[in-house]
Amino acid sequence: MINKLTAKIKKTGAPIVVGLDPMLSYIPEPVKKKAFEEFGETLEGAAEAIWQFNKAIVDATCDLIPAVKPQIAMYEQFGVPGIVAYKKTIDYCHEKDLVVIADVKRGDIGSTSGAYATAHLGKVSVGAMQYAGFDADFATVNPYLGTDGIKPFVDVCKEEKKGIFILVKTSNPSSGEFQDRLIDGKPLYEHVAEKVAAWGQDAMGDDYSYVGAVVGATYPEMGKVLRSVMPKSYILVPGYGAQGGKGADLVHFFNKDGLGAIVNSSRGIIAAYKQEAYQSFGEEHFADASRQAVIAMKEDIEKALLQL
Amino acid sequence: MINKLTAKIKKTGAPIVVGLDPMLSYIPEPVKKKAFEEFGETLEGAAEAIWQFNKAIVDATCDLIPAVKPQIAMYEQFGVPGIVAYKKTIDYCHEKDLVVIADVKRGDIGSTSGAYATAHLGKVSVGAMQYAGFDADFATVNPYLGTDGIKPFVDVCKEEKKGIFILVKTSNPSSGEFQDRLIDGKPLYEHVAEKVAAWGQDAMGDDYSYVGAVVGATYPEMGKVLRSVMPKSYILVPGYGAQGGKGADLVHFFNKDGLGAIVNSSRGIIAAYKQEAYQSFGEEHFADASRQAVIAMKEDIEKALLQL
Repeated sequence: MINKLTAKIKKTGAPIVVGLDPMLSYIPEPVKKKAFEEFGETLEGAAEAIWQFNKAIVDATCDLIPAVKPQIAMYEQFGVPGIVAYKKTIDYCHEKDLVVIADVKRGDIGSTSGAYATAHLGKVSVGAMQYAGFDADFATVNPYLGTDGIKPFVDVCKEEKKGIFILVKTSNPSSGEFQDRLIDGKPLYEHVAEKVAAWGQDAMGDDYSYVGAVVGATYPEMGKVLRSVMPKSYILVPGYGAQGGKGADLVHFFNKDGLGAIVNSSRGIIAAYKQEAYQSFGEEHFADASRQAVIAMKEDIEKALLQL
Repeated sequence: MINKLTAKIKKTGAPIVVGLDPMLSYIPEPVKKKAFEEFGETLEGAAEAIWQFNKAIVDATCDLIPAVKPQIAMYEQFGVPGIVAYKKTIDYCHEKDLVVIADVKRGDIGSTSGAYATAHLGKVSVGAMQYAGFDADFATVNPYLGTDGIKPFVDVCKEEKKGIFILVKTSNPSSGEFQDRLIDGKPLYEHVAEKVAAWGQDAMGDDYSYVGAVVGATYPEMGKVLRSVMPKSYILVPGYGAQGGKGADLVHFFNKDGLGAIVNSSRGIIAAYKQEAYQSFGEEHFADASRQAVIAMKEDIEKALLQL
């Protein structure tokens, strides 16, 4: 799957992932109204609104981008109907040949971590049959529990040719509370990055490993160091746009070949119609606004990559 | 909810939580057979088997114990039908007046962490209505992202009078890779514990905070230190039984009042019928074996607490 992701990034020229994190407040009134008319102001109604919203954005952007990243928390809050919308979104994105990065930030130990890996990337056995629960292509994983938490994911990745992105340095202001603390003269996130490189070593695609990392766009200087610590790991970069990360900051996350990083934008794309720059689209044409925002983001990153 | 948990622990005399982590391999053949006959060897069939298995164990143990801890990974692996069984299990445990600790180990930042908190502990707004997605009483949370990840959970806990257990020192062998590393002369887990105490300070129940911690039974010496760092936090202690933790090791996790800790056993209880000690029950009476295992665990802990 890392090979497919790399190929699609080359083909689209856009190292961009659209974060499908549909807060109800992002969804235009007409979309909500229609869903609530059909299902009422219920969890099912909310799930329908999310699904229709996602579908429109995917339809409007899928030819421009290699991948999407649904954030499962936004679906989980609507209970079982939310999870149904999550699964429907994954399946639809696959129909559109998009790579799906499940932003689930799971992490546990042993058989439990194995169950998460099975849930999101693998196949579960029921009697003589096998089923994929959610069937994403990549998942994000939390490293706090160490190798016991990561190994079961890597095993499933190797079996299914799928991938993970391990949290190394997150984009939020308080990420430093633990991640930046010095251990033997190096910050914790760098120790995690060294492990990411090690875990990924025997799980290689053609050029990059199945094991990638998450490093926030808001910390470009750290991106520079981490890029060199994990040369074979794709870096998933959140924090662009709404969280304050700029195109020019991104150059450090890429390798000299212009590959090795994929930049996420969620709100900045899916709620673009709410921004002044795209107001002229109006809420009815929210998906066209999202398309325009993808094009602008692509240009911003292209410009940054000229510095490579 | 921490007050209810404490009251129920006093009433039952059992600081025990039964981990409802139903691997299909734990479920007796007759239960699986019946479910597969009705739903086929499908995800729905697996979910039905899990649900019937859980129900029988809850029925057989609910008068002895204060709480259960479903591990959501074990349900997620069966996709949407698994999640339906998870929700059904929570609701049934509430009918039986059990406190439900959702072992979800979620953790993200800002609005995303807020969405997870809403999903598992809070209520989501849909138009003019409000709904609880999963409606557990406690959730486990990962601290790697710092205050930004925890604060939204604490806010929901205060609003709903619910609680969280934050991973401090996990029970697995490789937990030391990051958690034990020294920062300013103290291991990372101790820094996390200090934060747990701070985060919990303004979210107090009568005697204990809404903000608890997870510390593995497999590390009793660390339990001793951590008990004193977080005097007002309940400690959820996994790793008893199958993972190697013994009753005698548990004494350090409790306060002098015999409270302050709740010990989880999953496999050791729910798959008790597979152990030599309970073989005489046979797989048809698996739930009675579980009841017997709870009684034995209670006695083991009682004996340990005599050392207090």
